[in-house]
Amino acid sequence: MQISRPYLMFLGDVPDTLAAKTAYGIVDWRRDWCLGQLRLPGCKADLGLPDITVEEAAAQGAKTMIVGIVNAGGVLNEAWVPSILKALECGMDVASGLHIRLGSDPRIAAAAAEHGRQLFDVRQSDQRFATGKGVKRTGLRLLTVGTDCSVGKKYTALALEREMTARGLDAEFKATGQTGVFISGRGVAIDAVVADFISGAVEWISPDAAPDHWDLVEGQGSLFHPSFAGVTLGLLHGAQPDAFVVCHEPTRTNMRGVRHPLPTIAEVIDLTVRCGRLTNPAIRPVGIAVNTQALAEDEAKTYLAKVAAEHDLPATDPIRFGVGPIVDRLEAEFPRARAAS
Amino acid sequence: MQISRPYLMFLGDVPDTLAAKTAYGIVDWRRDWCLGQLRLPGCKADLGLPDITVEEAAAQGAKTMIVGIVNAGGVLNEAWVPSILKALECGMDVASGLHIRLGSDPRIAAAAAEHGRQLFDVRQSDQRFATGKGVKRTGLRLLTVGTDCSVGKKYTALALEREMTARGLDAEFKATGQTGVFISGRGVAIDAVVADFISGAVEWISPDAAPDHWDLVEGQGSLFHPSFAGVTLGLLHGAQPDAFVVCHEPTRTNMRGVRHPLPTIAEVIDLTVRCGRLTNPAIRPVGIAVNTQALAEDEAKTYLAKVAAEHDLPATDPIRFGVGPIVDRLEAEFPRARAAS
Repeated sequence: MQISRPYLMFLGDVPDTLAAKTAYGIVDWRRDWCLGQLRLPGCKADLGLPDITVEEAAAQGAKTMIVGIVNAGGVLNEAWVPSILKALECGMDVASGLHIRLGSDPRIAAAAAEHGRQLFDVRQSDQRFATGKGVKRTGLRLLTVGTDCSVGKKYTALALEREMTARGLDAEFKATGQTGVFISGRGVAIDAVVADFISGAVEWISPDAAPDHWDLVEGQGSLFHPSFAGVTLGLLHGAQPDAFVVCHEPTRTNMRGVRHPLPTIAEVIDLTVRCGRLTNPAIRPVGIAVNTQALAEDEAKTYLAKVAAEHDLPATDPIRFGVGPIVDRLEAEFPRARAAS
Repeated sequence: MQISRPYLMFLGDVPDTLAAKTAYGIVDWRRDWCLGQLRLPGCKADLGLPDITVEEAAAQGAKTMIVGIVNAGGVLNEAWVPSILKALECGMDVASGLHIRLGSDPRIAAAAAEHGRQLFDVRQSDQRFATGKGVKRTGLRLLTVGTDCSVGKKYTALALEREMTARGLDAEFKATGQTGVFISGRGVAIDAVVADFISGAVEWISPDAAPDHWDLVEGQGSLFHPSFAGVTLGLLHGAQPDAFVVCHEPTRTNMRGVRHPLPTIAEVIDLTVRCGRLTNPAIRPVGIAVNTQALAEDEAKTYLAKVAAEHDLPATDPIRFGVGPIVDRLEAEFPRARAAS
């Protein structure tokens, strides 16, 4: 799958910024690829890109319109269809991370055929996988896990990739969600895989590697989320991480989309270690990544210091303060000499 | 989905009896529907049915040939294709629980079309589900869980249905696997659902019910199986069981298909309670179901007594000794008066 750049980011009429997290993720990590944003009346998200029409984007050379929207169940909203048809008409491909195929709407399928454009359904995997085997693979792996969905697991893995690469470590982000696939150009949207093959697909994403190579596997969901914990557990078993980072959003009171309260960071560490031991007995936490966006800087620092002390782990906000302390811990726990020996 | 009876059971060239567990399950619970078995050279399974050819089965009125075979990855074996084509040619439908669609083989698709026959892929779900919500539903639910795959979870749930119904309790088997769907005529093969919808599909299978109604939900996999634990966890969260029964096979040394050792029964109870509390804080074990087929009767009784004492739970072999002790415990823990009050 090769998605052509640059992108026009389509936000539709999303009711909040979390629903546009795919689009935000792409802009945060691949700003240069994004020409502008297209928002419909009622849209509550803003990527900070120029607001442009489909025609303007096409005139500026946009090759693909990205439907960068997440919603429960992944339904295609009727209000979005005219914009998608217009993009195809103007010569753009359209790429989506929704569960439903763009082409399942006959109007979209017909327009794509008529104008000779491609429809990319990043969340649909036509690829076949083997069932997971749980056999230990070579190389090193880090998984980001979370107290909830949408708490920064992808951001943290990407920030770790940037920092580790800057330090000369051999580290590579491994996408397991639609946004990650848009950002890295490859990977598998693991929540779209047939349930029997969750861990097998992750084994495929992160195969045997050099002894000192780190795969930084993007986590999904939470072991404590009643909708998605199965995905999270299969991902944990397939990733067989040597190290994991817990991601958290301290002001959230309920798990996203349901009525359940958030687990504590300690509960997440404990259950992750307990379940993760099945495929990697040496699994251990190496840090806590907190989204402190809702806190003032002083509050954030106080909170991070408290969390770090409570769990005896480095705690940081990857966006605000960087992931240096976590990489310090990772380097201490997994000295490079080990790889060279 | 309505599969026509009676059945011809197709066993192919399966290398062991476990690989034919779908077929055994159907025969054990729906013997009257099965006219005979068709085995290829090298087949190591025997259902105890008359060996008949496709032509003989057709002459005796068989309406559907059941491909009653389980194998890792669900591949369609080339050696099975001629028999499938012959069945279609002789006027039978063909139903399969494999992951792969029968019609994905162009020869089979063409033969079905030519002869006007139906292909049933029980493991394929074209149905759309919502994501799980984790909201407590009315009615009572029991889930069978296991130390491994293929340790009697379906048998136990069906035996409980038979015993509970005989006692005048309102109890219904809820299928979550291909064999269960063949046996009950409905349900969803949960391991074939897209990963994001595992718990949501189980919520659909077992909706709100009368206060004294028991849904007996067929378990899948094991929380300790590195290939399938994600399915198991999503199923646990979606089923939100009030009670669970642990199923075990005491002579097995490795998890099926992988190199991992079996967990202990105590580990399974502990992790099931811990994870199950997320959607039902009152979850509790009510019995242990052991497949003692490999033990002499005295050995089996000694083993069951030991296991029962160790866990303070009734322990029985559902096939050999019935599930009476487990239903006794269930009735004690959940008195019918509660429902009537």
